[in-house]
Amino acid sequence: MNSTYHKFKINKDIALECGSSLDEIIVAYETYGTLNADNSNAILICHALTGSSHVAQNDSNNNDGWWEAMVGPGKAIDTSQFFVICSNVLGSCKGTTGPSQINPKTNEPYALTFPIITIGDMVNVQKVLIDSLEIKQLHAIVGPSMGGMQVLQWAIRYPAMAKKCVVLASSSSLSAQALAFGTIGRNAIVSDKLFQDGQYTATRFPKNGLGIARMIGHVTYLSKESITQKFGRKLQADTGYGYNLDQEFQVESYLMHQGDKFVEQFDANSYLYLSKALGYFDLEKEYGSLKKAFEPIQAQLLFISISSDWLYSTEQSKAMVRVCMNLNKDVSFCDVQSDYGHDAFLIEHEKFGELIKPFLESKYD
Amino acid sequence: MNSTYHKFKINKDIALECGSSLDEIIVAYETYGTLNADNSNAILICHALTGSSHVAQNDSNNNDGWWEAMVGPGKAIDTSQFFVICSNVLGSCKGTTGPSQINPKTNEPYALTFPIITIGDMVNVQKVLIDSLEIKQLHAIVGPSMGGMQVLQWAIRYPAMAKKCVVLASSSSLSAQALAFGTIGRNAIVSDKLFQDGQYTATRFPKNGLGIARMIGHVTYLSKESITQKFGRKLQADTGYGYNLDQEFQVESYLMHQGDKFVEQFDANSYLYLSKALGYFDLEKEYGSLKKAFEPIQAQLLFISISSDWLYSTEQSKAMVRVCMNLNKDVSFCDVQSDYGHDAFLIEHEKFGELIKPFLESKYD
Repeated sequence: MNSTYHKFKINKDIALECGSSLDEIIVAYETYGTLNADNSNAILICHALTGSSHVAQNDSNNNDGWWEAMVGPGKAIDTSQFFVICSNVLGSCKGTTGPSQINPKTNEPYALTFPIITIGDMVNVQKVLIDSLEIKQLHAIVGPSMGGMQVLQWAIRYPAMAKKCVVLASSSSLSAQALAFGTIGRNAIVSDKLFQDGQYTATRFPKNGLGIARMIGHVTYLSKESITQKFGRKLQADTGYGYNLDQEFQVESYLMHQGDKFVEQFDANSYLYLSKALGYFDLEKEYGSLKKAFEPIQAQLLFISISSDWLYSTEQSKAMVRVCMNLNKDVSFCDVQSDYGHDAFLIEHEKFGELIKPFLESKYD
Repeated sequence: MNSTYHKFKINKDIALECGSSLDEIIVAYETYGTLNADNSNAILICHALTGSSHVAQNDSNNNDGWWEAMVGPGKAIDTSQFFVICSNVLGSCKGTTGPSQINPKTNEPYALTFPIITIGDMVNVQKVLIDSLEIKQLHAIVGPSMGGMQVLQWAIRYPAMAKKCVVLASSSSLSAQALAFGTIGRNAIVSDKLFQDGQYTATRFPKNGLGIARMIGHVTYLSKESITQKFGRKLQADTGYGYNLDQEFQVESYLMHQGDKFVEQFDANSYLYLSKALGYFDLEKEYGSLKKAFEPIQAQLLFISISSDWLYSTEQSKAMVRVCMNLNKDVSFCDVQSDYGHDAFLIEHEKFGELIKPFLESKYD
């Protein structure tokens, strides 16, 4: 098994959609399985907002990956058949160049001097990586949430580069409500006294603001049903109300814990940049209409939505599927019934697996 | 017209549900219309989280009240027929005793020495006020949102005190999701560096934290439909994306504006206490079951929910209505079709008026 963690350095200037550019981009990526003789069995997995290249266990890292149940030998994304690649996105903080990395020109962290990046920029960087691996065409590109936006951008921008595309719990743009929650989270970060225009240190950083952003995000990832089933109004102590200003409900301490855990793992500036990239993504705006956006697509498409996902709704997936059908694209769609909300993409492995595995392995085309 | 702003001082100790007590409570209230000879035409209106006694224009204050379209001569709550009373709740910051008021024992603001208060405590204070006005029975008690919780508490605790009760866009307890958003807002306030354990000043106070709490609240007051219809993904400038970390979407600047406006009008400590009171309210927990809670009710009841309200859902109103029906209470219910979400209670005056006006004016009983 060729399963390792890699760092790939791009030694050329990459033009960004904001008009700026970046050189010396480092891309952290991990691979799983073996690339076949004609380099035709590669699958690129694109991660969500706070994900990383570590999609599953491998020789470099035997911790569970973020999609452990989906990726591995015999699993839905079968690494005994396919060569799986997952790279950390541009702007993140899990090994790929982002605002927390040192700017080689100044020897200081980029912080807010980092240029604004977009989903399209992330994809362009991935394209350089895939080219460097001498892969002429990916067997598939698969991504949930923000990863699904990358998949869409790939399919539109590089139509010949993927035979199959899986867009899971994603959309062609954030809804106004999702924009609203995003901006409140970013506001919490930048208004934290320790943010200091992004010039914080590893020990004094905007923990509270980032924690609040994460907690807001977390609530939007859960459905009303799942948060009720999981916690309801259960108290932490069975001694009744404490009549103080502390967190007393289990759902409250759970959220605090999620926030506390997250701030130790993620960079506040990266959160700002990636949240902004999510907000900017808008295929209708970029191409004039979804129809124009989707016209160039050649890949066989699978859209999957989650019935209780209110952040990336079923309706948003259906809107994309309708356009694909009108364009006579090879498109399949399933709205997976689940109470878990957006988070289901990390939970309902069996339901997604039974859709994704045959889609990836079918050879009728 | 006897329409004025009053301050009523309670010169006795009021026991609170937390086990503590308060003396020298000041209650700010406003009245509209004229109390009839047998004191039988009074309607008490209970306000929501951030409301005040100023429900409509009156001689003391000709600014529009928070329910201006609903309250006045000839309106749904007709002040030419009824004597309307609206008092600011205990713990608030609009004239009634709360954490921002001076503790007469110390001559300092209460701040966090203010005892934890509940919806029941608010109602007990209102009861003293109503008794002082020599009103033996209210014609009706009407309240939206947190006001509806007060109405329920009144109907259960003082069954003979109201002939009619209107519970609008409310519930018998907050959902787990609503608890979650509440706790994130409170966390934003207390983690603001300027909070200083509640000992902030009028010029240096936790503006950012309170603003974030308000913005979170505001998004939960809007439905996904209304926020999309109102803003969608419209940009503030028609020059396209700025590619910076600023707020660029209209929905973002709108929320910031809502936050900024709110922090000038509301006290952060009051927000904490009232948000806590909302969280504590739980009739199932208090009485063992909704059935036991509702058994003593004598009033004629009207429940109104809003079809797109995801904070106080139609399902939560229906659950209360079902119990009332099983108990053979005199109960009416309407789920008002509206896209405005929870905020509809401040917008859909005609729809509510045509339900509330005949309910208040019917004399069949």
